[in-house]
Amino acid sequence: MYSLTVCDHIMIAHSFRGAEFGPAQRLHGATFAVEAEFFAERLDAANLLIDIGLARTELRRILDTVDYNNLDELPALAGQNTTTEFMAAHIHGLLAKACRDGVLGDGGRAVARIKVLLRESPVAWAAYEETIG
Amino acid sequence: MYSLTVCDHIMIAHSFRGAEFGPAQRLHGATFAVEAEFFAERLDAANLLIDIGLARTELRRILDTVDYNNLDELPALAGQNTTTEFMAAHIHGLLAKACRDGVLGDGGRAVARIKVLLRESPVAWAAYEETIG
Amino acid sequence: MYSLTVCDHIMIAHSFRGAEFGPAQRLHGATFAVEAEFFAERLDAANLLIDIGLARTELRRILDTVDYNNLDELPALAGQNTTTEFMAAHIHGLLAKACRDGVLGDGGRAVARIKVLLRESPVAWAAYEETIG
Amino acid sequence: MYSLTVCDHIMIAHSFRGAEFGPAQRLHGATFAVEAEFFAERLDAANLLIDIGLARTELRRILDTVDYNNLDELPALAGQNTTTEFMAAHIHGLLAKACRDGVLGDGGRAVARIKVLLRESPVAWAAYEETIG
Amino acid sequence: MYSLTVCDHIMIAHSFRGAEFGPAQRLHGATFAVEAEFFAERLDAANLLIDIGLARTELRRILDTVDYNNLDELPALAGQNTTTEFMAAHIHGLLAKACRDGVLGDGGRAVARIKVLLRESPVAWAAYEETIG
Amino acid sequence: MYSLTVCDHIMIAHSFRGAEFGPAQRLHGATFAVEAEFFAERLDAANLLIDIGLARTELRRILDTVDYNNLDELPALAGQNTTTEFMAAHIHGLLAKACRDGVLGDGGRAVARIKVLLRESPVAWAAYEETIG
Repeated sequence: MYSLTVCDHIMIAHSFRGAEFGPAQRLHGATFAVEAEFFAERLDAANLLIDIGLARTELRRILDTVDYNNLDELPALAGQNTTTEFMAAHIHGLLAKACRDGVLGDGGRAVARIKVLLRESPVAWAAYEETIG
Repeated sequence: MYSLTVCDHIMIAHSFRGAEFGPAQRLHGATFAVEAEFFAERLDAANLLIDIGLARTELRRILDTVDYNNLDELPALAGQNTTTEFMAAHIHGLLAKACRDGVLGDGGRAVARIKVLLRESPVAWAAYEETIG
Repeated sequence: MYSLTVCDHIMIAHSFRGAEFGPAQRLHGATFAVEAEFFAERLDAANLLIDIGLARTELRRILDTVDYNNLDELPALAGQNTTTEFMAAHIHGLLAKACRDGVLGDGGRAVARIKVLLRESPVAWAAYEETIG
Repeated sequence: MYSLTVCDHIMIAHSFRGAEFGPAQRLHGATFAVEAEFFAERLDAANLLIDIGLARTELRRILDTVDYNNLDELPALAGQNTTTEFMAAHIHGLLAKACRDGVLGDGGRAVARIKVLLRESPVAWAAYEETIG
Repeated sequence: MYSLTVCDHIMIAHSFRGAEFGPAQRLHGATFAVEAEFFAERLDAANLLIDIGLARTELRRILDTVDYNNLDELPALAGQNTTTEFMAAHIHGLLAKACRDGVLGDGGRAVARIKVLLRESPVAWAAYEETIG
Repeated sequence: MYSLTVCDHIMIAHSFRGAEFGPAQRLHGATFAVEAEFFAERLDAANLLIDIGLARTELRRILDTVDYNNLDELPALAGQNTTTEFMAAHIHGLLAKACRDGVLGDGGRAVARIKVLLRESPVAWAAYEETIG
């Protein structure tokens, strides 16, 4: 299995509901370093898994929907605790749709699985990995 | 599949028995940067895989049993070459038990798989990954 | 010149006033990975620049005054744009005071200079470095 | 499952054929930081997955066949776009052969799977992972 | 003294003349991860050292003059061994000019010193640091 | 001022004398990632600060005198607490001598200053920087 990973980052504010979150119940924030990994069984005739330029542009477009925002106030995330693991799955869903819709070209249509990993600090990160299609 | 990773580190002394270890047969040491990754199919109602505070506390408690020690002299590791791959599996076993015993809460009981990765230097690391439960 | 660096991190929300900040005028957030570097001309009789345990504890105590907060609402930072470079100087001031007040022991009193560096993302960071005493 | 990873790097020139590569159609280059990960179900009697010295030596020997070269001119890669994902699979093939041929000792013969990951920049990397044997 | 650093990278081909370069006399290449650090004694009224957006844009514009090229064939670098230390100074000169010319705004005009650091591999990097003005 | 940095690492055992060291009074160990930075005002005719191959070889030779050892038992370090800051200065002294003795060629003789930085863990490091000659 081949994989290709592209990276970017977002800087967001949010807060959590639930006593188990302790001080993180207060409004605070995070830089999420985002790694989007695309898996495929085969490369195309040009030896590409996916067009890296398209992948970075689409990842940026998706991240722009949340970047520099207070996630508590975004309608798309209403009622959710925007934990790192939840946000990884949220971005995974948008990237999977982009692949299926052809936004990432023929390479994107051949992607079998995506993993999205978000680093929230030097000592903690979360990921969501699932087949698509 | 979701995953959540927390990190910590230990600083230990040890030596290896066997000619294949070359100079590492002498008493030497290592900083092991430890990454503990927990996998689960679902998040809880608060969108958490596992309580990150509990996970960091339990990882620290487990690492304290070996940190700042000469592993050659620890009864729990008697007769073992404490290679990086062996230590990854050793810590995996203790974290798996903590999950099963409920030390990591309901989230810990729902963990399906754990991966423990130990970085011994900028150019070498080892891991042990297995289902638990 | 010797130096010793200890690290920690904070996760904060804030916003900026001024058109030059573009989308960062909105409430957003950041993980700041903090590196505090202490410089001294000499080590003590035990070959220490500063007690690393005291240094980590004091850095943590200082960071707790801002961690998991919306900086826009902290009285100690009222009226300030809490840019990364400003926050580096703010933390520098608190560490310098701790050294002068003896919180970091005799080693802290012998510190000649401090540098505080805050990484806001994988592609941007800021620092403040100045002599103290 | 256990895994052990060793690292090295190469510095190569190359160019790509195909309009989708944009400016990368021009002769340019890359530093590839190479991570070779070996997986096995069991450790040997010495608690080793594979001899780390043998692994680093063999990886170096394989990388020497392409290091400090213009990949466009190497007969072994003739007619190929030497994308990061392609080069990961190329190196994977050579490491798999080394394991099967006994170059990495008994540990190498017991390796079940290999993953080769090449970092081409701070924001992009590719990998090839497959069972061997 | 305050400092602000922004990062980017380039992927270039080149070769070196001189027996001391060994295999690097052959045409090869490198990814240079570029860190541009700007120093100033004071922040502006908005608590900014320099507009981070302008800095990243100008660094990108400067890097575009060499990115995805064979440095051996660029007129601006004719007759030079494009070592990492030389390229750091080359980029330093272009950034210093941008500051003096006002491309980086009033903040740029107040920059007292610039450091440009280029990482060529995980184990080697070079820098050039000098006052400007 | 130009600088060039080369990296390597060592894996050592040691213990500390003095109550302020707490659990580090026990025999333990560390991986020290070593960064040796050489500063010079000018490059040579080939645009080199120092021969990177010679620098890496000499750094390796120096590190071999302590690598895979219990520092408590090395005559060259007798009676010393081998703290990270002390070891940085120790290696600095050996590199400075190598420069002065011509082991690093004409480039080494022109080195004005050396900085040696040792990373002992992801959250702590120490350095020694001084002019030589």
